[in-house]
Amino acid sequence: MSFDRLIEKIVKLQNPTVVGLDPKLDYVPSYIKEKKFKKYGKTFKGAAKAILEFNKGIIDEICDIVPAIKPQAAYYEMYGWEGVKTLCKTIDYAKSKGMYVITDGKRNDIGATMEAYATAHLGLTDVDGEMLEAFGADALTVNGYLGTDGIAPLLEQCRAHDKGIFVLVKTSNKSSGELQDKLLGDKEVYAVMGDMCEKWGSEAMGKLGYSSVGAVVGATYPQQLEQMRAALPNTFFLVPGYGAQGGGAEGVAKAFDKNGLGAIVNSSRAVMCAYQKEGCDERDFAKAARREVIRMKEDIISYLPKISLGE
Amino acid sequence: MSFDRLIEKIVKLQNPTVVGLDPKLDYVPSYIKEKKFKKYGKTFKGAAKAILEFNKGIIDEICDIVPAIKPQAAYYEMYGWEGVKTLCKTIDYAKSKGMYVITDGKRNDIGATMEAYATAHLGLTDVDGEMLEAFGADALTVNGYLGTDGIAPLLEQCRAHDKGIFVLVKTSNKSSGELQDKLLGDKEVYAVMGDMCEKWGSEAMGKLGYSSVGAVVGATYPQQLEQMRAALPNTFFLVPGYGAQGGGAEGVAKAFDKNGLGAIVNSSRAVMCAYQKEGCDERDFAKAARREVIRMKEDIISYLPKISLGE
Repeated sequence: MSFDRLIEKIVKLQNPTVVGLDPKLDYVPSYIKEKKFKKYGKTFKGAAKAILEFNKGIIDEICDIVPAIKPQAAYYEMYGWEGVKTLCKTIDYAKSKGMYVITDGKRNDIGATMEAYATAHLGLTDVDGEMLEAFGADALTVNGYLGTDGIAPLLEQCRAHDKGIFVLVKTSNKSSGELQDKLLGDKEVYAVMGDMCEKWGSEAMGKLGYSSVGAVVGATYPQQLEQMRAALPNTFFLVPGYGAQGGGAEGVAKAFDKNGLGAIVNSSRAVMCAYQKEGCDERDFAKAARREVIRMKEDIISYLPKISLGE
Repeated sequence: MSFDRLIEKIVKLQNPTVVGLDPKLDYVPSYIKEKKFKKYGKTFKGAAKAILEFNKGIIDEICDIVPAIKPQAAYYEMYGWEGVKTLCKTIDYAKSKGMYVITDGKRNDIGATMEAYATAHLGLTDVDGEMLEAFGADALTVNGYLGTDGIAPLLEQCRAHDKGIFVLVKTSNKSSGELQDKLLGDKEVYAVMGDMCEKWGSEAMGKLGYSSVGAVVGATYPQQLEQMRAALPNTFFLVPGYGAQGGGAEGVAKAFDKNGLGAIVNSSRAVMCAYQKEGCDERDFAKAARREVIRMKEDIISYLPKISLGE
């Protein structure tokens, strides 16, 4: 139940970060692409196979350092159903290496349809009596614009299968304020959404102080991170926007509680493209990713209290 | 550009309705399931093949009456990547029969990621110089919670490939009001989102009075439909919630303009499960769907002025 499994991994590795696997084909080293295109042509199959090899290479090198990955569904859907197959296989592979997997899909819909998404990403699908796992992530990002009945089916899956969700509260992008910062009476839209997370989570609490209902709060808005951390004591945060998008470790520290817990910080491009930034041999892409996740971990924990489960 | 292609189909068929293809396996007649399970086992492949045959059967019988289909991504993702392959093939098949396809994915993300979704669902993906179509819908439903930079990449694809988007404004579910009805100053959240649609659409106008940026407004809220129709003269509406969810034709009529245009009304379950409701032979499922789409069309147009392009 809840994010306890994730929190335990964070404490064990002393690392509250997650690697976003958002693999544009441009990020994949040429030698991998050439090999796959030679075998499968310049097709979605070729692209999807290249991305899978790239992802596995990175997972192999980071799984003893980083507790979780966050594949972004959009970058797989770009390559059609073959790309989505690579998403499935990436999730399976990361889990086989002991990693926690957050599928970043920002799914949302009315209750009946949300049931289907919840089943797809967190649950088991009934195929005439056979219960099969479609995507099998540990957590899913979702959008709460539709209110409680769009969230309730997810909570059922969270309870049944020990999973979690992260609801968009304050996103990391520039125009996030157009709606999210507007005032509803004396509260911003994002703060109202935050309150809804806390309420939804109250029925799905874990043992370590956080519920199954987390919130997405961008690293690019440290003031809001601090405000939300204070307002939402039982809501675990997923914090995108560190690094490439401009969020710094000092600001990000505001997302954490006094035990150095309560949040996980994402980095995508800086890890996947570390070899390009370093200018090292492209065959060294996974080792470069490893160097970057170590650098990121050190950067972030340098601003935090010692990470522990508390008393 | 815009929804002109859809509007022309609506006028030609004198039918402003769309069939939602949200195929739970329960909806598929047993004889189809048995055939596929015999060949492929009780697997995602078997389920996906059964759903594809079901969808094709319905499309064959409705394509001369109904202008569009709206497959709901969740119901395909439930069956893993094999299900998503069936989504691709359903879209292709409907387009080959001359239908307009709205993928109901309610996608949303920050700009860079939305670019990937826009490419996936409405555009062409660059695979090392080969431009390939991943899903190839004509329109996509999206969620505007992230503001303008989450919408801009979609508008680019709309302009480049003559596509459209429908942004969630006032959804059909019971708890939609929890956030959407709250007041931002003197305007409800949904009305503010509606204004954003009108603004985004102003840079992507069609020739027939409506832009590329449509809005989702639920049939279950006729008062809001009327309010939004008056406030958003250039925004085409996708109206879910007719039939099974409780929205009636008289209320739905408020979504239309004086030419009987400006909206398209969705029905899913009532069409897919018409054979169950009728109690006819399950092998007659597609003919029953045909009877239901004719009934629905007659019901809805009976409350509308003659559908025409105006002067």
